[in-house]
Amino acid sequence: MLCFGPTPVTSETLDKYPNLECIVGSSAGYNHFDLAECRRRGIRVTGAGDSFSEDAADFAVGLLIDVLRRVSVADRFVRAGSWPVKGNFPLGSKVGGKRVGIVGLGSIGSRIGKRLEVFGCSIAYTSKRMKPNVSFPFHSNIHDLAINSDVLILCCALTKETHHIVGKEVLTALGKEGIVINVGRGALIDEEELVQFLKRGEIGGAGLDVYENEPHVPKELFGLDNVVLSPHAAVITPESFKALEELFTYNLEAFFSNKPLRAQIECE
Amino acid sequence: MLCFGPTPVTSETLDKYPNLECIVGSSAGYNHFDLAECRRRGIRVTGAGDSFSEDAADFAVGLLIDVLRRVSVADRFVRAGSWPVKGNFPLGSKVGGKRVGIVGLGSIGSRIGKRLEVFGCSIAYTSKRMKPNVSFPFHSNIHDLAINSDVLILCCALTKETHHIVGKEVLTALGKEGIVINVGRGALIDEEELVQFLKRGEIGGAGLDVYENEPHVPKELFGLDNVVLSPHAAVITPESFKALEELFTYNLEAFFSNKPLRAQIECE
Repeated sequence: MLCFGPTPVTSETLDKYPNLECIVGSSAGYNHFDLAECRRRGIRVTGAGDSFSEDAADFAVGLLIDVLRRVSVADRFVRAGSWPVKGNFPLGSKVGGKRVGIVGLGSIGSRIGKRLEVFGCSIAYTSKRMKPNVSFPFHSNIHDLAINSDVLILCCALTKETHHIVGKEVLTALGKEGIVINVGRGALIDEEELVQFLKRGEIGGAGLDVYENEPHVPKELFGLDNVVLSPHAAVITPESFKALEELFTYNLEAFFSNKPLRAQIECE
Repeated sequence: MLCFGPTPVTSETLDKYPNLECIVGSSAGYNHFDLAECRRRGIRVTGAGDSFSEDAADFAVGLLIDVLRRVSVADRFVRAGSWPVKGNFPLGSKVGGKRVGIVGLGSIGSRIGKRLEVFGCSIAYTSKRMKPNVSFPFHSNIHDLAINSDVLILCCALTKETHHIVGKEVLTALGKEGIVINVGRGALIDEEELVQFLKRGEIGGAGLDVYENEPHVPKELFGLDNVVLSPHAAVITPESFKALEELFTYNLEAFFSNKPLRAQIECE
C-alpha cells in the first residue's frame, strides 16, 4: 500500500486488504497509522525517515529567531508604515544564552540542538529514553526540562503518551518569559490552555507550525505580536520532496526484490 | 566626546572642540565619523566593537531563513485566514546546500559564516583583504562572489569604496533565484535598482534591515511576498545594550586613566 501524507490507516482499512504486507508511507509523523494493528498482522510500515529532518530543524530555528528577535512583527510594522510614526520598534531578546529544552531528540531534535549550540544556546532534552553518545543534559520528564528552560521546542512523535504533553503545568513551569516552539504535531499541546496563557501574558511567546484541529487556527492568536504562525509548512521544500521521492521509490523496489526497507517505523 | 548612535561628527563639529582627544562612540558602523579628519587631528575614536556582533549575525540568519522558508509570509497567510481557503501555501526553499557569499568577513560576517555552515550552507566571502586562518574561499571582488553565490549577505562597513557596492551588475550576476540580505548599511545597495529587480522578478528575494534614506522604506516593497523588512533592528537587544554600556564605561575610565582603549576604530 502506498500512503501519501497523513491518510489514516485504521484496523478497518487493513481489513479490506487481507494480504497486505507493507505500507510505504511519506510522512515524518506516524500517528495516522494503527501501528499496533500493523504489528499484529505482520505488516511493515515505512515513513519519511530523515527526508524532512533538515527542513524541520531549519524551520524550528527560524521560528525561534523570529519569536525572539521579532522578525515577522518587524515586517508587519514596516509594511504598515509605522516606522517611525509609531516610535521606536520594541526590542527583541538575544538568541545566545537561552536555555533550550528539546522535547524528542530524534533526527529533527538532534539537528535543532546542533544548530542552536552554534548560536550560543545551552541545550537540554527529554526523550523516551536517554540517548547514548549525546552530551546534552537529559531530563526524564518534560516538567523538569521546562523548569530549567527558557525555550521548549516540540519535535517528538504524537502518541498516546505525548498527547497534550504541554498543558497548564508545563506552561507554568516554563514561566512568563518562556517560549514554546512546535514543529511536531498540534495535539502535543493543550491548545486551549496555550491560548489562555498567551492572552494573559503568562508565557512569553510561541512559534507554531502545527495546530490541534488543522487547518483551524484559534482566532485569538491573530491579534498577538508574540506569536508566529505558519500553516504546517515546516517540512516542505522542493528539495526535501525530491529526497522523499527517492526514498519512496527505493522502498517500493526494495520490497519487491526482498531487500531491507529504509526508514522503517518501529511498530510498538 | 560621547557620541550616541549615528550622530554625525564632521570637520565642523570638531572645530568647536579644539582640545578634543577622544570620541567614545556606541555604533557598530562608523560612516557618520569623519575619520580622516580625526586622524589628522590625532583624535582617537571608539565604536561598539563586538557588542552587537552576535545579535546582528543572529538577525541576518533569521532574515535568510525567513526569506527562504517564507516565515513572515506564512504568518501573514495564517493571520489573514487564508489557510486553507486560498489553497496550499507555496513551497519555500531549503537552507542547506545554498552557496552563501558574505560581503565583509569582520566580527559580524565571521559569526554569520559559522552559523550557516552548521545548516549545510557553503560559505565564501569578499573583504578588503584575504583573512589569514580562514578556510572559507576568498573572492577579490563582489562580482565574482555574486556569480558563485545563491545568497549575498552584506555586513561590511559603509565607506566611499562600498557605497552602492550592490548595483545592477552584481544583482544580474546573482541572478533570478538569488537572495540579498542586508544588515550593514542601506547605501551599500543601490536601492532603486534593487526595487526594480525585485519588482521585475529578476532577483529571488531580499531581507532588509537597513535602507538608503531611513526611516523611508520604498513603498513598492510593501506588496512583495519575497522580501522581509525590518526597521534597523538587527543589532538591538537588551543584552547587547548591556554589553555596550560596559564597553562605553570601560573606555571612559580607560581614557582618563591612560589605559588602552577597547574597540578603537582605525582612522584610515
